[in-house]
Amino acid sequence: MSDAKVRLYVDQPLGAGQAVALTADQAHYLFAVMRLGAGDLVLLFNGRDGEWRAEVAASAKRGGTLACLAQTAPLQPPPDLWLLFAPIKKARTDFIVEKAVEMGAARILPVQTRFTNAERLRQDKLHAHAIEAAEQCGATFVPEVTDLQQLDRLLATWPADRRLMWGDEGLAGQTASLPDLPRGQPWAILIGPEGGFAETEKTRLRALPQIVPVSLGPRILRADTAAVAALTLWQLRYGDWA
Amino acid sequence: MSDAKVRLYVDQPLGAGQAVALTADQAHYLFAVMRLGAGDLVLLFNGRDGEWRAEVAASAKRGGTLACLAQTAPLQPPPDLWLLFAPIKKARTDFIVEKAVEMGAARILPVQTRFTNAERLRQDKLHAHAIEAAEQCGATFVPEVTDLQQLDRLLATWPADRRLMWGDEGLAGQTASLPDLPRGQPWAILIGPEGGFAETEKTRLRALPQIVPVSLGPRILRADTAAVAALTLWQLRYGDWA
Repeated sequence: MSDAKVRLYVDQPLGAGQAVALTADQAHYLFAVMRLGAGDLVLLFNGRDGEWRAEVAASAKRGGTLACLAQTAPLQPPPDLWLLFAPIKKARTDFIVEKAVEMGAARILPVQTRFTNAERLRQDKLHAHAIEAAEQCGATFVPEVTDLQQLDRLLATWPADRRLMWGDEGLAGQTASLPDLPRGQPWAILIGPEGGFAETEKTRLRALPQIVPVSLGPRILRADTAAVAALTLWQLRYGDWA
Repeated sequence: MSDAKVRLYVDQPLGAGQAVALTADQAHYLFAVMRLGAGDLVLLFNGRDGEWRAEVAASAKRGGTLACLAQTAPLQPPPDLWLLFAPIKKARTDFIVEKAVEMGAARILPVQTRFTNAERLRQDKLHAHAIEAAEQCGATFVPEVTDLQQLDRLLATWPADRRLMWGDEGLAGQTASLPDLPRGQPWAILIGPEGGFAETEKTRLRALPQIVPVSLGPRILRADTAAVAALTLWQLRYGDWA
């Protein structure tokens, strides 16, 4: 983080000489919590213009201004990979979002399955959680978190060119491997709910032309473990770890 | 889990016709929480004799007896892989132990580094957490969780034949790959603390003949994410996912 103590996401344009107005929350965090003052450095990113070093130009109780100095990293979007997951208990749902950001998913899609129990999913909170994870892990990109969608409906209009990797428990113990395909293609990973998929859902998934079933080892993984393991497997094979 | 609703670790011998006496805690869980009664089925494992189907022979308020019927799975120990990690906040430490069990580590070693803050690590609680994870993930083995040890001292007597895989942040962005070595050899994975290693520690690690530095992708991973990702990478290359 060089000499800047804070890395902050802002929903504003960044560029040489650009002034960035702070929200009241951001001002509170920078000036009251982190105790920054005029001239102190901050790293900024907005998901579009890379990462910029900025300095505090003016600070106030409920606002303030930063001035962009120089770009410190270009925009590095993750590969075109979506993560679909069935939300679980709140703490683990937050973890999955955090891990999807760290592991480099481009889009996070919570899905409702037969055995999903998630009436009260707060998309805005999950989005804030994704931003926080991006601030922490040095990403210059923040994946979109969509609203909860019915898995059924999503599959009914699934893009023809987007492969769907699925940790099929029926393959437990078989070799974990992905087919030999070119990189740079659109993909998604589907992580099931704690209770597993219903039989009708499994039948539906197996019949999907875009499906790529994969084994995730001989033990049963919790959803959040499975998400990180599947993302690792994919990134090693087709993504930005290779 | 077939027709058994409960999978339970017991620290007692298992075998055909073997009677298993329950502790007060186990009796409370089976009879009060899960409401099992005489003749109901339970799956048992002890980390040594595989998994056994057993039935409730006698139930009481503070005890009871199960009778082993038949083995349902042989003992499947994980590969000879240790996970060393610097404990962090309690919730994430618990997660790392849980994930190490699911991902198949044979031994879990919390280590004290320069930047580790973990005076109050409860080895007994972490061991109980490992047992719970094994009950959940279908493992027939429970990794040992050692007491907190100084990393320095551990490295001073590090076994000559045990390679140590280390997610070196200095390699961020390089290709994540492990050398072409035969399987079945002793290994360990080292996951650093949130604040990273001190420079003196990095120098020490890089000079260790058994060290195998590896990149874990272009983003900075939290310790618990890094643990799952590193375990996935290793299991795919040398372990029981391959």
